[in-house]
Amino acid sequence: MKASGPIPPEFAARELPLAEWIAQAGSTPLYAYDFGIVRARIARLRAALPSGVGIHYAVKANPYAPLLSAIAPLVDGMDVASAGELEKVTAVMTSKSMSFAGPGKRDAEIEAAIVAGATINLESEGEASRAFAIAERLGKVPRLAVRVNPDFELRGSGMRMGGRASPFGVDASRVTALVKRIGSAGAEWRGFHIFAGSQSLDTAAISETQAATVALAGRLAEEVDSPPPLVNLGGGFGIPYFAGDVSVNVEAIGRSLGQQLDRRPTILSATRFAVELGRWLVGEAGIYLARVVDRKESGGETFLVVDGGLNHHLAATGNFGTVVRRNYPVAVAGRIGAEAEEVVSVVGPLCTPLDRLADRVALPRAEVGDVIAVFASGAYGASASPSAFLGHPAVREILVGV
Amino acid sequence: MKASGPIPPEFAARELPLAEWIAQAGSTPLYAYDFGIVRARIARLRAALPSGVGIHYAVKANPYAPLLSAIAPLVDGMDVASAGELEKVTAVMTSKSMSFAGPGKRDAEIEAAIVAGATINLESEGEASRAFAIAERLGKVPRLAVRVNPDFELRGSGMRMGGRASPFGVDASRVTALVKRIGSAGAEWRGFHIFAGSQSLDTAAISETQAATVALAGRLAEEVDSPPPLVNLGGGFGIPYFAGDVSVNVEAIGRSLGQQLDRRPTILSATRFAVELGRWLVGEAGIYLARVVDRKESGGETFLVVDGGLNHHLAATGNFGTVVRRNYPVAVAGRIGAEAEEVVSVVGPLCTPLDRLADRVALPRAEVGDVIAVFASGAYGASASPSAFLGHPAVREILVGV
Repeated sequence: MKASGPIPPEFAARELPLAEWIAQAGSTPLYAYDFGIVRARIARLRAALPSGVGIHYAVKANPYAPLLSAIAPLVDGMDVASAGELEKVTAVMTSKSMSFAGPGKRDAEIEAAIVAGATINLESEGEASRAFAIAERLGKVPRLAVRVNPDFELRGSGMRMGGRASPFGVDASRVTALVKRIGSAGAEWRGFHIFAGSQSLDTAAISETQAATVALAGRLAEEVDSPPPLVNLGGGFGIPYFAGDVSVNVEAIGRSLGQQLDRRPTILSATRFAVELGRWLVGEAGIYLARVVDRKESGGETFLVVDGGLNHHLAATGNFGTVVRRNYPVAVAGRIGAEAEEVVSVVGPLCTPLDRLADRVALPRAEVGDVIAVFASGAYGASASPSAFLGHPAVREILVGV
Repeated sequence: MKASGPIPPEFAARELPLAEWIAQAGSTPLYAYDFGIVRARIARLRAALPSGVGIHYAVKANPYAPLLSAIAPLVDGMDVASAGELEKVTAVMTSKSMSFAGPGKRDAEIEAAIVAGATINLESEGEASRAFAIAERLGKVPRLAVRVNPDFELRGSGMRMGGRASPFGVDASRVTALVKRIGSAGAEWRGFHIFAGSQSLDTAAISETQAATVALAGRLAEEVDSPPPLVNLGGGFGIPYFAGDVSVNVEAIGRSLGQQLDRRPTILSATRFAVELGRWLVGEAGIYLARVVDRKESGGETFLVVDGGLNHHLAATGNFGTVVRRNYPVAVAGRIGAEAEEVVSVVGPLCTPLDRLADRVALPRAEVGDVIAVFASGAYGASASPSAFLGHPAVREILVGV
């Protein structure tokens, strides 16, 4: 038997309105995003953060349009990673609060960002040159920030994005020269974007990284001799996926950040700060629901075959950036919290051994027609999965609790 | 530096008609599938296999419609894994040559298969019951084969699908009872589908598995006391992806299979056999082409950022069923075979460290605007990737050499 991950507290003792959700979606398989949970996360973070620190939503975590619309009024900015995401966000946000990060921005994407008035987080000197040329052709003043590849990394992070050679951002040692070029080119310098990692559950490490980020921003600002209007501190707050995972303490993070900002370098005194979060805001609000199509025995083991899997939820099958496959939190949807009666593996309908949503977990007995819930599925789910693989129907998505 | 995989011989000393392909596709990034290579693979396999052993195409490897149309006249059957794939195949094949395997077939899929006259490879007793009921409701005689979970596995295979508890097929010990139920229900029994693994480069292991498969089919047929019309031997022929990988010897496989069939149990004397291949037929015929958008230095390393990556070609980034990330064969498309001048990493445009197409490979120097080719990309590429992730444009596909 292998452990299942922890069910988010909001769902642990709750009867899901399954029939209603499935009717709303039209059928299983589906993702349901509970906006009540997202709203509560934003409110909790707001209360925890020092005043003047904004909350940005990283659209890549979940770009479902109704979710974006609902989030927009509650946050201070949205950060996109492509022209496609930019287009979705322009429908719900004003231009001042958008920023665009990502290596390999194509010319058409840079143009779209300039036209929309979004801040472009420059990833290289070459990208800067292209942005200057495109802005000149358009007769526009581009808003440009510099994405910094920091000389430290976020400890305990699922994906390290700093402290090493990286395709992301400009090495800290070359940032000053680039900011000066932005000024000389007559562009509007918007500040720094400094992202050291993601999916860390280590509260102290997140605070240390934020402290290092504020210090780095101060050092760079002094080198540039100009205060950055905004410093995007990145995010990196993880959520519990696997047995033993414990949530980050955002109140502690907020207190620590407040102390850091109280003693920040003078040159940053008028600077605004923001955290950019995706997964932490929406991840635990999402549930993936798939219906048992077959229940079968093989080699002494029991398999529940459900009507969606890897094609909708790659990450839950352990095939997206994880080295060791572990079980997401799962339950029989109608009986969350009920006593386990058997050990089963939950597999999807794809003809590949990779398609396993839960490996030998203890669950109450489920029959054909029952629905299996995979929790912690609100981020990097539907949009991060190979939906066309093997030609099964696309997953449906609904937003509830708005 | 890390090694690049071996460039397929058909491309190793060839100037690609890059401009023509990109014009045909409309832009990069794109997949080009060279049908000349597919045709040659099929012809080579035909010549190698004993007469009477059919060739089936596993659509899941690459369901691109023009490719299916071109393959259809050259093979003896197509095997699908969903109603979606079935629909594509019915457009290009007659019903007799289609089979449908996959756990978790929904009732609507079983119905579609029966209506189309496709053979359903039954994955469980429960699926059989549902098929009987649906056929009765439709007033049709269903064609049913039994997918057998063999009691052996294909050695050296990238994905083992036999020899253990499995969601695929019916354990060998229960097959006889199920075949008898098929007869009693008045359905047409089509035989066995026995699939022990995939992506093996071990020629001897493939031959041993085929021998074991023929023997198992004979044993089961004797238990059933009825000759199976068809035995689908599965596939499992791998292709070289990584440094040191060597192609399988299909001529040796064919000779060995001929010997096995010459001495097969009498009960199989009128049985037809087929191999079901996807990757081996189309994998090496495909190239993924992406254009360099940025060339940047960080921490002493050089990165080529190209306009597509993980969103189009998940497997090449090492995030699809591989534990250790290794490099696919890559080249600067205009200069295949040219001398290496530098060590670079090729990364896609996604804002995640997972998006790396090649890690520290030696290449001739490439500049912004050059095109990078990733070879061995004809199978499990476009359709097996999270195309919506981060909102970048979908990849384009073209078939050439028809």
